[in-house]
Amino acid sequence: MIYLDNGATSYPKPQSVIYGTMNAVRNYSFNSGRGGYSASIATAEKIYSVREKIGAMFNYEPQNIAFTMNCTQALNMAIKGSVKRGDHVIISSLEHNAVWRVVNHLRKDGIIDFDIAQYDFDEEETVKNFERLIRSNTTVIVCMAASNVFGVAFPLRKIGNLARRHGIRFIVDAAQAAGVMPINSEKDNIDILCAPGHKCLYGNMGTGFIAVNEDVHLDTIIDGGTGSESQNPYQPDFLPDRLEAGTLNNVGIISMGEGISFINSKGMNNIYDHELRMTDILYNGLKRDQNAVLYCPKPEKFSSAPIISFNYKDYPSEKTAALLARQDIAVRAGLHCSPLAHKFFNTLDRGTVRLCPSAFTTQRDCEIFLKRLKKI
Amino acid sequence: MIYLDNGATSYPKPQSVIYGTMNAVRNYSFNSGRGGYSASIATAEKIYSVREKIGAMFNYEPQNIAFTMNCTQALNMAIKGSVKRGDHVIISSLEHNAVWRVVNHLRKDGIIDFDIAQYDFDEEETVKNFERLIRSNTTVIVCMAASNVFGVAFPLRKIGNLARRHGIRFIVDAAQAAGVMPINSEKDNIDILCAPGHKCLYGNMGTGFIAVNEDVHLDTIIDGGTGSESQNPYQPDFLPDRLEAGTLNNVGIISMGEGISFINSKGMNNIYDHELRMTDILYNGLKRDQNAVLYCPKPEKFSSAPIISFNYKDYPSEKTAALLARQDIAVRAGLHCSPLAHKFFNTLDRGTVRLCPSAFTTQRDCEIFLKRLKKI
Repeated sequence: MIYLDNGATSYPKPQSVIYGTMNAVRNYSFNSGRGGYSASIATAEKIYSVREKIGAMFNYEPQNIAFTMNCTQALNMAIKGSVKRGDHVIISSLEHNAVWRVVNHLRKDGIIDFDIAQYDFDEEETVKNFERLIRSNTTVIVCMAASNVFGVAFPLRKIGNLARRHGIRFIVDAAQAAGVMPINSEKDNIDILCAPGHKCLYGNMGTGFIAVNEDVHLDTIIDGGTGSESQNPYQPDFLPDRLEAGTLNNVGIISMGEGISFINSKGMNNIYDHELRMTDILYNGLKRDQNAVLYCPKPEKFSSAPIISFNYKDYPSEKTAALLARQDIAVRAGLHCSPLAHKFFNTLDRGTVRLCPSAFTTQRDCEIFLKRLKKI
Repeated sequence: MIYLDNGATSYPKPQSVIYGTMNAVRNYSFNSGRGGYSASIATAEKIYSVREKIGAMFNYEPQNIAFTMNCTQALNMAIKGSVKRGDHVIISSLEHNAVWRVVNHLRKDGIIDFDIAQYDFDEEETVKNFERLIRSNTTVIVCMAASNVFGVAFPLRKIGNLARRHGIRFIVDAAQAAGVMPINSEKDNIDILCAPGHKCLYGNMGTGFIAVNEDVHLDTIIDGGTGSESQNPYQPDFLPDRLEAGTLNNVGIISMGEGISFINSKGMNNIYDHELRMTDILYNGLKRDQNAVLYCPKPEKFSSAPIISFNYKDYPSEKTAALLARQDIAVRAGLHCSPLAHKFFNTLDRGTVRLCPSAFTTQRDCEIFLKRLKKI
């Protein structure tokens, strides 16, 4: 199988992640922080080491990292935990349903109103598009680091700076960037960072985290046992306990830690460069194929994640993907849970086919893809 | 290590679960239902087979099973998704913080009021205690199948019947029962069943599910991509998509499926009998030890989960557990995230030490425990 669906989840996982998963099932499947025996303490230390790795990667204190089932859960916790009745929220025009459905739900319940700031290939224009939507009651800006469909990145630092100047909380969905594009909470003025563990971080599916700045207080959407302050009728005020109710996914968390070590050993920058070389090959090949329709400029460093969306002939995207599947090529087609982005790029009618390499994608994979594409 | 902390999470996991975990990382780590290539379709089928296994065990249609990160998340979804402003909720006097903190949060927000029905060793009295708290605006009863601290079980069928007669939604927290005690949504009149996958179901940590009856509509607390109805600004109405936003924990879910197969191969009833034999040994040994303080009658079939809580000498429970840990015995002490239960049994001051066997616990384990306990 030629796997180019790393935007959905990275595959294969590094050997160290597979080994780490086994190790976690066998040796770290104990309730951390709730038992006093050595296996429980060793588990707690192992889990903490993953907080440290995430903290080091994105510039957070380890205890300010809370683990979630996925990036979606993290975004729900971030957004719903931030707003109060009467607030105004701004999101970008390329947001995933993990953001769009959340703000729609909040608006339907009469809690917030929201506006959509248009993406622009010009960074300054994008920032201006956010700025002109700011109202006196705007309390939250939510923006993705890069589009999960078209790869284009947002100028986080500039948007974060805008948010900070206006005293607005800045929430970032780093689903397609965390682990490949540099993100620094302090330099990028990010208040809350949400990310999955199973995409560019190379952990198992069912992992993710929410990273929260020191001065950010969040209401909780999930309450329960934390192994701390048990007699407190509410979630404890301190992190990560406040945002971690119930038993954690130790196996997944430890796999994510191994994934991060894999990235660190390769160098995140090197992985990004490698993947951009792969998207170069793919993009150039598609550009030469007169049946291919492209929607964005070629992915360039820092202005795009290594993701390409295209269509072929007059086929619906699902047909292209199905024909490629018959040739043992794995890509995803359709709307990728991001109708906003397709509305923006005028592809709502047939969606797009998405290509997303990983650290494991080879030049040969890309060439085989391009060759087989011509046959469909 | 003599492991008697299976109430926190079962250990060890069956070999088939460990193998299934590996197999899932290698062969089923694809986005199910979102890709059209064979690996994605095979993954979707594998995930569906776990829904079928859970459905068969608790009498639900497979599609009415939604996967969560833990039982806590499932309970939050069940309770918060069920209530509207002005509702009255009844919970039992032994509920875990996964329920108590949820209703406290809802009350603090001015959404609901709630009352606590006292557990009684007499089933009829327990039911009456629920009945006398019913008001005209009572819409939800939440009750655990069995106490996570003291093991005592609730007469679910009778409480469910009471709820049904009054048109009240019945939500069950099966954290310590699912996989060992028989639960049947139809016979027990359960509207929503919540359970973890990593305790008596023998899956990995970070797994759980919410099972919802056909006629139950739930508002959502987590919104996001479902790979379905992408242009719908809200969660789809149909299950399981409505309750499953974002990427699932495939590895964990598949491990849970293997855990259920393990139970089915042994026979749930046989496992229950085995564990009760173990609690018999433990209970009788503690009863003969004049330094041990017990709080409940010996666990009996159907009236208790195989769980014992005790204290030793005048020690705080944490001291007893720490001294046992030095002898390589793993137990949990403290409040077990259930202050309500400790208030009821008058053990809030020092908590209790909990003993919980699994299918893997042997008579020898229990005897070693009893012998070492005498030394502390």
